[in-house]
Amino acid sequence: MRLEFTKMHGCGNDYIYLDCLKGMIDNAPELARRLSPRRFSVGSDGLICIAPSQVADATMRMFNADGSESAMCGNGIRCVAQWLYEHKVAGDEMTIETLAGIKHLSRKGEGIWQVEMGAAEFEPALVPVKGLGPDPVINRAIAVDGLPWQVTALSMGNPHCVTVVEDVQSLDLERIGPGFENHPAFPEHVNTEFIQVMGKNHLAMRVWERGSGETLACGTGACASAAAAVMLRLCEPDTDIALDLPGGRLTIRVSEDWQIRMTGPAKTVYTGVVEV
Amino acid sequence: MRLEFTKMHGCGNDYIYLDCLKGMIDNAPELARRLSPRRFSVGSDGLICIAPSQVADATMRMFNADGSESAMCGNGIRCVAQWLYEHKVAGDEMTIETLAGIKHLSRKGEGIWQVEMGAAEFEPALVPVKGLGPDPVINRAIAVDGLPWQVTALSMGNPHCVTVVEDVQSLDLERIGPGFENHPAFPEHVNTEFIQVMGKNHLAMRVWERGSGETLACGTGACASAAAAVMLRLCEPDTDIALDLPGGRLTIRVSEDWQIRMTGPAKTVYTGVVEV
Repeated sequence: MRLEFTKMHGCGNDYIYLDCLKGMIDNAPELARRLSPRRFSVGSDGLICIAPSQVADATMRMFNADGSESAMCGNGIRCVAQWLYEHKVAGDEMTIETLAGIKHLSRKGEGIWQVEMGAAEFEPALVPVKGLGPDPVINRAIAVDGLPWQVTALSMGNPHCVTVVEDVQSLDLERIGPGFENHPAFPEHVNTEFIQVMGKNHLAMRVWERGSGETLACGTGACASAAAAVMLRLCEPDTDIALDLPGGRLTIRVSEDWQIRMTGPAKTVYTGVVEV
Repeated sequence: MRLEFTKMHGCGNDYIYLDCLKGMIDNAPELARRLSPRRFSVGSDGLICIAPSQVADATMRMFNADGSESAMCGNGIRCVAQWLYEHKVAGDEMTIETLAGIKHLSRKGEGIWQVEMGAAEFEPALVPVKGLGPDPVINRAIAVDGLPWQVTALSMGNPHCVTVVEDVQSLDLERIGPGFENHPAFPEHVNTEFIQVMGKNHLAMRVWERGSGETLACGTGACASAAAAVMLRLCEPDTDIALDLPGGRLTIRVSEDWQIRMTGPAKTVYTGVVEV
């Protein structure tokens, strides 16, 4: 069968996008596994289906390279918005249904989209964090592989642990990351963000994602980093905070009530036709 | 500008193929640099232009991801043959002009092509090998980073050093490879093949390519390995020798006068259109 697709990326987080507006397909996990291997197939982080919705402009269904389904991806949803805009399905403001709820997106420039990412949650039971007491974990010292780190723990729908460092580029994440990921304080494991203050409301970030290792860009990680930086008074609320990730720049706003909006690029690279 | 391309791979060695039969383009190095980055662009090992020839069915011009031009690639030329066959430019037998001369290719099955790769050359001055005397370097002991290795040195148009090991999968090539690549015996540096005898006329191979590190498949390396194995009487001449590479299987025949023929797969993955 002849399958048309669009290849897009947001900060180097690249997916194969399929037009399923006429009806969701039933073999998406298999297609994700088959088309994602780099060099031997199309090559991507996974497959995203753009399907109809009863309650929004479209539904986003996201399948990782191993065929598993994820609820939401900050970089992926910006690309879905760009795809819907380019195909004139929606305009400058739109809603996209995900397994993590309906998200509102606004166009902020050529290929630039803002996403409402929901609220940062510092309540330990909701992160979840275990064994560090009832108070939010804000700049708390914990030992990781025998070394002391100051960490802030929060949820953006998934668990995050943010730590401020002097020089983020010099860190050996391959060596450091697994100790955080598997730390007993995080019963569901954790995504760990290492941030460096580069200037006023300007951070650099590297991330160790649970199950994936270091990645070029993690949308919820960028949101968690900005929220932690506001909590630690390293950045200001209700202001654009620039985050430099290995894959590009994201801009995050943290409101006084911890609602997070993320703005970043979404790029169509090419369209393709593959026999499947 | 709207650029149509075909994405193909041979044993995981993947290139973007352009139809330049109506005339060679002048911005191929720039396109190679721009389209090769994975995740952010199409993603490939480089760009191959299929251009007209006065003396063969077509000319192959090959540009690496950094824009530099290479004379020839065993995995790439099989894909050029498959492309010419699929586009009905040539049939089961064809000739392709390269900067390393005119190559003859024969179709051996669905997506399977044989290439005449030229002769293996053991003469030390032609490899080149330096400081190991006037005789061919056949199963000679040399010290690499202070450890003894038995090596056979030969040229397939480019310099190769082949060494037979007990267990090729267990080798730490990141640690071992650079010592061979920069060894003073190889003034133009060297591609090093580590081979293991798996059975009668059956080898497993891993390769450390000069300038590239470990790769999934190196066509000339597979030819050099088979020739060395015949020289060492580990395999037979005029017989199919199966080589298992990390990217797939190649079949090599070594004639009594050291002419080498390589047979392997060439696969069209998809066609695409990119704005450049």
